[in-house]
Amino acid sequence: MQITANNPSRKSWLEVSSNSDFPIQNIPFGVFLTKDNVMTIGSRIGEYAIDLSALHQLGYFKDIELVDDVFLQDRLNDFIAHGKGIWRQVRNRIADLFDIENAKLQNKKKHRNQIIYDVQDIEMHLPVNVGDYTDFYSSKEHATNVGTIFRDPDNALLPNWLHLPVGYHGRSSSIVPTGKNIHRPYGQSKPAGAEKPVFGPSKLVDFELEMAFITTDVNKLGERIAIENAEDYIFGLVLFNDWSARDIQAWEYVPLGPFLGKSFASTISPWIVTLDALEPFRIESPKQDPKPFEYLQQIGANSFDIQLETFIKPENSDENLVTKSNFKYMYWTMAQQLTHHTSNGCNVRAGDMMGSGTISGPTPDSYGSMLELSWRGTKPIKLSDGSERKFINDNDTVIMRGTCKNKDVKIGFGECSSKLLPAL
Amino acid sequence: MQITANNPSRKSWLEVSSNSDFPIQNIPFGVFLTKDNVMTIGSRIGEYAIDLSALHQLGYFKDIELVDDVFLQDRLNDFIAHGKGIWRQVRNRIADLFDIENAKLQNKKKHRNQIIYDVQDIEMHLPVNVGDYTDFYSSKEHATNVGTIFRDPDNALLPNWLHLPVGYHGRSSSIVPTGKNIHRPYGQSKPAGAEKPVFGPSKLVDFELEMAFITTDVNKLGERIAIENAEDYIFGLVLFNDWSARDIQAWEYVPLGPFLGKSFASTISPWIVTLDALEPFRIESPKQDPKPFEYLQQIGANSFDIQLETFIKPENSDENLVTKSNFKYMYWTMAQQLTHHTSNGCNVRAGDMMGSGTISGPTPDSYGSMLELSWRGTKPIKLSDGSERKFINDNDTVIMRGTCKNKDVKIGFGECSSKLLPAL
Repeated sequence: MQITANNPSRKSWLEVSSNSDFPIQNIPFGVFLTKDNVMTIGSRIGEYAIDLSALHQLGYFKDIELVDDVFLQDRLNDFIAHGKGIWRQVRNRIADLFDIENAKLQNKKKHRNQIIYDVQDIEMHLPVNVGDYTDFYSSKEHATNVGTIFRDPDNALLPNWLHLPVGYHGRSSSIVPTGKNIHRPYGQSKPAGAEKPVFGPSKLVDFELEMAFITTDVNKLGERIAIENAEDYIFGLVLFNDWSARDIQAWEYVPLGPFLGKSFASTISPWIVTLDALEPFRIESPKQDPKPFEYLQQIGANSFDIQLETFIKPENSDENLVTKSNFKYMYWTMAQQLTHHTSNGCNVRAGDMMGSGTISGPTPDSYGSMLELSWRGTKPIKLSDGSERKFINDNDTVIMRGTCKNKDVKIGFGECSSKLLPAL
Repeated sequence: MQITANNPSRKSWLEVSSNSDFPIQNIPFGVFLTKDNVMTIGSRIGEYAIDLSALHQLGYFKDIELVDDVFLQDRLNDFIAHGKGIWRQVRNRIADLFDIENAKLQNKKKHRNQIIYDVQDIEMHLPVNVGDYTDFYSSKEHATNVGTIFRDPDNALLPNWLHLPVGYHGRSSSIVPTGKNIHRPYGQSKPAGAEKPVFGPSKLVDFELEMAFITTDVNKLGERIAIENAEDYIFGLVLFNDWSARDIQAWEYVPLGPFLGKSFASTISPWIVTLDALEPFRIESPKQDPKPFEYLQQIGANSFDIQLETFIKPENSDENLVTKSNFKYMYWTMAQQLTHHTSNGCNVRAGDMMGSGTISGPTPDSYGSMLELSWRGTKPIKLSDGSERKFINDNDTVIMRGTCKNKDVKIGFGECSSKLLPAL
């Protein structure tokens, strides 16, 4: 089936400003609470949220094979489990219904009133119940920077890095949607030169600029998938701030990896932008040398050109752009990550989330964490209010944005934003 | 409220053999499918399974504050979320109803027929939907053995180990109940002396003898808990085989920890034995030196005397006891593990599972993995059929058992059993 929703010449009868992240070519999916206290699955065009459970109830999806209550839920998991064919039909239908050439819904004021909300009047919630969350480490620049800072500049990349997408299991419970503020975590750390560890609030809280993809049911336990099919199981992407407490992490992570240095919070943007919507922004990923194992080999344009920005906004002050990066810098593609994840037979389910790892670019202004931007605190960043940052201060808000642009259309991810409150 | 269910002088009107793991003093919780294809929550006495949804429907719990359909579910999460007070009331009630001194249910044949199944006629399922699974590394003997084998015998324990319960996030999706057979995983590894890694079936599949505890809702994101309260959030324990592919693990795990070397499968015993039932088997944990941070300090008997055994059963041959260990060897207690887990504000939910880490004792016959028992393959183990094992062979079944005994009573965990099928 064609992705007719992506037609760049479409316009919506809903007003959309030219710089909106959400033109009719986007049609993302999310979960929101209406002002009438109803939790529903929805989409968004411009500054309007669209209640998909109301649309379904009014019969606008009646020829699509959907379970009756699929949209009257507080998480997208069941819808995602319907699979790619259904996602595409639903997204195409929404685009048709809101197309300025289509009078069907446009002329039904009563229906419109049941379906359309001002985004100011809704509250965004977590879009999926994340069964398992995996974080990869797939930016060569990031892995090289971290290896240089913490280990050995001459052997910054570890021997396995170029052969497989290194990843680890993360914590699902502490994934929160944009706007949920978090607290500076307590933890054990061992200050440089100290004989003994200390316990107290982390002194080195950092962001990590990442994106994460959300899967549908991929495989049964024991089965592997072929890389050619991997993208069929990816529903869409969100922006992902993998908050990290560097001092806690450094003390705890040998030999079993990051644990409490990460699990105090991870913030995601609330609208899942589908892989279908990103189709016009395909781009080749970096050349891989050495050639990967056959089960990881791909041809063609398997990455996406998504411009990423991170801002620090101190309390009562302005946003400061601290880094500009791009999803296309990732050395390992999403299809490679997912295929590798199932290579041992590990089963992946609808609603699982996989983070890219920190996305650093080749230049110092494109690094994806304060650890790298301030080079472990040796090069503080100057903000517009005159203050300096080595890491994140109490009451700083960290805001991530991501957009795709070509000559016809711009689509975006909205915001991934969260304020770091003082330790409790 | 008293734990009257534990009264050692109770006898049940259901027949229980003297060596059963499930006397009336146990009353574990699990999920099973009946021969009529109904999924229900249940308990067990002797060779009989008890349908708790039927008991509830017939009014036997009517004065306990339970949601109507709490037992007519395919997972225990909602029941567990009711909290410790309710678990205790329900367990006490079940013990009362099946007490030989109580005629109430004993004399109602019609009710008994709706409630009681022969365990041969039911199929045990996964007891909880595991939201997040964490694996600790809390046996000093195991950590010392692994450090000696892989790193440096003179500095086997890493510097953080005596200060905090080292742990990492694991994979929930591939946790399976006893009886579900698994496949030898494929993966990348780098053979000793080789220049390049290879991809193929793992050659070094191992078991890890562990136990795991299951929590109720502990805290909101950002909150920590006090160690004095930690046990109130622990519902119960199961046996846990943390299957490990040593060759995959060795190649992938630096620097972010175990990933595909573990996530191909973990097997658990299906009956959750409550912490209440284990109360008579409290014992002090090993003395901790150095003294832990204040947030991890405990007094009294905070561990449990649970004898553990692991058997290897080759295809068409006998069970071979390969190790005898004990839960009491754990250096860090469950309360310390859980308190540490929330020390950064990480939220823990009903149905989360936390593994102990491999439980090795002080003597070579008490080591909890083949890696240690065969000392990385240098000391093969002889089986009764004349064959040798360094690691686990195709079609070997690995069986774990755990029992608590005192002069009055023996309670046990049943079996955690799974066969390793050849690679697919």
